[in-house]
Amino acid sequence: MTAFTLHQIGVLRTPFATRADCPRNGRQPDPPPECRAEIFPDFVPGLADLGTFSHLILLYWLDQVAAPSLTMTPPFDGQARGVFATRAPVRPNPVALSVVAFDGFAAPGCLRVRYLDCIDGTPLIDIKPYLPTTDAEPGASMGWLTRHATRSPRAIG
Amino acid sequence: MTAFTLHQIGVLRTPFATRADCPRNGRQPDPPPECRAEIFPDFVPGLADLGTFSHLILLYWLDQVAAPSLTMTPPFDGQARGVFATRAPVRPNPVALSVVAFDGFAAPGCLRVRYLDCIDGTPLIDIKPYLPTTDAEPGASMGWLTRHATRSPRAIG
Repeated sequence: MTAFTLHQIGVLRTPFATRADCPRNGRQPDPPPECRAEIFPDFVPGLADLGTFSHLILLYWLDQVAAPSLTMTPPFDGQARGVFATRAPVRPNPVALSVVAFDGFAAPGCLRVRYLDCIDGTPLIDIKPYLPTTDAEPGASMGWLTRHATRSPRAIG
Repeated sequence: MTAFTLHQIGVLRTPFATRADCPRNGRQPDPPPECRAEIFPDFVPGLADLGTFSHLILLYWLDQVAAPSLTMTPPFDGQARGVFATRAPVRPNPVALSVVAFDGFAAPGCLRVRYLDCIDGTPLIDIKPYLPTTDAEPGASMGWLTRHATRSPRAIG
């Protein structure tokens, strides 16, 4: 099977020390805490022009996952689900994605963000600008998660 | 520097044979062509419950990228930009992300999707349900890309 190599580009700083401390998603805490994305110095030149965006997509590596599984039973649901129909960490490639609000730089290479849900120290692997023209689907179906939503889809936008 | 290993879980099928054939983004062609995400048999059990969602997030590996760069000059812009302020493939980790419309299964393990923008044969690394409660930010700023948008943000939703 073909494999590819990812390189860590930075580290995420959150108030969540353990998996048990993490919220179900980054918008569940009210108010959402300020988090940081610290980029390693070698990659800082790649942050030019980022300050013009209000929201970003962060990709990060869930390095605390012990073993992947193709099905998982969410604690809030009680029924086994295909892992690709969930956002659970136990997927074949434990790459997580969060759409975060970007509140500017605390220092060069240090981004102030909200809506992260991961453990403090999680490895960062990519930063992308969030583009509503291709990334926003406010009318999308929540599927089997409809009755578990932490926020009303009608409240979006 | 810490590195992680990604495993290919399937392959993307698109009408785009070369990089020159690819649209700027997957919503630029009108109408957008039907594409396929073919999942390797070992991973098909992870697709259970996916059929209840209207939109998915696909993560894929841009294996045609020759060398990463921390800055890049978009062909439509003419000014060098930090790579993290773009969606260009030449990033440190060439993981791409598309929000796609999911039109059901053509066969077990074969998903019918729209809005892909990559070369036919691109390796797939993850499938996630698109959740408007955490993924939709229709009012987000397009930043420096505002004047290059291929679709009006006002047309969203």
